[in-house]
Amino acid sequence: MRATLMYGAGDVRVQTVPDATLREPTDALVRVLRACICGSDLWPSRSMPVSEKGARMGHEFLGVVEDVGSEVSGLKAGDVVVAPFVWADNTCDFCVEGLQTSCRHGGFWGRNGVDGGQGEAVRVPQAQGTLVKLPVSEDSALLPSLMTLSDVFPTGHHCAVKAGVNPRTTVTVIGDGAVGLSAVLASKRLGAERIILMGRHQGRTDLGREFGATDVVAERGEEGVEKVRELTGGDGTHTVLECVGPREAIDTAFAVVRDGGVISRVGAPQYDEVPMGSGPFMRNVTLTGGVAPARAYIVELLPDVLDGKVDPGRMFDRTVSLDEVPDGYRAMADRDALKVLVRP
Amino acid sequence: MRATLMYGAGDVRVQTVPDATLREPTDALVRVLRACICGSDLWPSRSMPVSEKGARMGHEFLGVVEDVGSEVSGLKAGDVVVAPFVWADNTCDFCVEGLQTSCRHGGFWGRNGVDGGQGEAVRVPQAQGTLVKLPVSEDSALLPSLMTLSDVFPTGHHCAVKAGVNPRTTVTVIGDGAVGLSAVLASKRLGAERIILMGRHQGRTDLGREFGATDVVAERGEEGVEKVRELTGGDGTHTVLECVGPREAIDTAFAVVRDGGVISRVGAPQYDEVPMGSGPFMRNVTLTGGVAPARAYIVELLPDVLDGKVDPGRMFDRTVSLDEVPDGYRAMADRDALKVLVRP
Repeated sequence: MRATLMYGAGDVRVQTVPDATLREPTDALVRVLRACICGSDLWPSRSMPVSEKGARMGHEFLGVVEDVGSEVSGLKAGDVVVAPFVWADNTCDFCVEGLQTSCRHGGFWGRNGVDGGQGEAVRVPQAQGTLVKLPVSEDSALLPSLMTLSDVFPTGHHCAVKAGVNPRTTVTVIGDGAVGLSAVLASKRLGAERIILMGRHQGRTDLGREFGATDVVAERGEEGVEKVRELTGGDGTHTVLECVGPREAIDTAFAVVRDGGVISRVGAPQYDEVPMGSGPFMRNVTLTGGVAPARAYIVELLPDVLDGKVDPGRMFDRTVSLDEVPDGYRAMADRDALKVLVRP
Repeated sequence: MRATLMYGAGDVRVQTVPDATLREPTDALVRVLRACICGSDLWPSRSMPVSEKGARMGHEFLGVVEDVGSEVSGLKAGDVVVAPFVWADNTCDFCVEGLQTSCRHGGFWGRNGVDGGQGEAVRVPQAQGTLVKLPVSEDSALLPSLMTLSDVFPTGHHCAVKAGVNPRTTVTVIGDGAVGLSAVLASKRLGAERIILMGRHQGRTDLGREFGATDVVAERGEEGVEKVRELTGGDGTHTVLECVGPREAIDTAFAVVRDGGVISRVGAPQYDEVPMGSGPFMRNVTLTGGVAPARAYIVELLPDVLDGKVDPGRMFDRTVSLDEVPDGYRAMADRDALKVLVRP
């Protein structure tokens, strides 16, 4: 079958790899209907050292079950399913607590002999716990929005949930990428009435306004901080959703959070330390968030996607075939595309 | 009147100062029945540069109302009252949110013309919001436990509440000082069934066991971390209550917290940054806590103190007169005393 591999910074190739097949009785075999390219896929594409073997890419996909192992129940050939970006048994103590990203028997796509999502098919370990059945057909118009349930929408939702967003909390979202826009959408869905989006790409912040942002701050750094403080009577917001990852973004988060407030972060940290000494201590600022246990949220978010109450699929502004995946990486790296959908 | 001043590291004096009197219509005048010495009082006593003017000391006291300003209602001469360690109007938006430490019209004892608690009397600003009436007489045997409502018991409680301690969470408390022991007591009160106390002073950890600690880890650093991990099947605890403040303690906290867990800190940070990069991000670790809004908790904790359900006053292992306060500082600095009660 064909699948995407990365061989080093900027070197993404679509190649023939061994066909995905069942290996364990807990596996399922899924033919990929849609996949996508994640901002985090771009990190290795910028910095990965040259690899002779290559790394299998993609951790977001939905598809059709083709076969299941003998220990998998509740799934059968023909089911349309979505996979969260971490596979997990969904029964261990961490999974029961809703932290499938720390599953005792789980892992990441594309590692240790597990296929990546950017390919024609995937062997899904712990399939019964990992996959969520979707009540749609293979040609549903909802596939793009359902695709976001793999990662980006639950990640924005996780960010908002951990921050405690509700109708009484004001919100600042840092970042107008797909995760930031998801955080806006999730905050609106949770009832937030004041959502300040910090981002400087107008096409994206315009979509952010449609998703629920009430204010947009295009300025960055100290200027951006001043603007948010102006908008909030000098106090900052109860919650800050940090959806980017650089140290500068987390510094901004501390500068715009209200006393007693919560910074929630889902941007992969590009820092080792955070400035959380006496200042944030005296102000009782909380820092939370982390890699999102998407599996914990899919069942909750699914009905609103099916009903069309939310349409996170609007974030996809380009669709590519499998062979065009390297172009998709380039488009996202160059910010020509917000988020790229892959249709193998 | 007589009051305590600090003139530099280790230079604590009890001197005659101007009598406390009403200045604002929102003031009350309180004669001090009991005060105490806080671990945080010792910080300036170790590092404070020499001051010619001196700094008024003490932020914990209870006493008898002698007079009230014209705008104070609900309090009258003769009432026994306790003061939280930050004064506040208790009506602004932060106070209403339970964050009296960020009150828009509040402040700290001993600063800007406000008396300290380690003296014969105190002018209490924003008295109606600050003071809590105690239904006891001046010679009640409960005064030591009631005295802890000023700071140390609500601080331990804040730490546990922000961590989300409940019957289903395992707890590690770092530090066997008065705050750490308060955190043990508060965790037990909130229903925690497994409380691991990290501390190496046996007299204190013995009291910790009586307060509810189920395990004591006397080892520090890596050895201590290994011990906590051993006690928790390798996972660490759901909550970690950091009650000391040095960087080493917060490093230990990150090493003993379970994936998805919460570190809550009330030890005044002796660090500017915390190690909260990719590791804690992938493990979804939350860092919360801060200076405790004691005022928010006194009304909730008071009944249990009055009923004798909790007896935090047992932490006082020495009582001094006002003139002996400098000896009290020395005893706490030398760890001869856990916590010193002052009886002016």
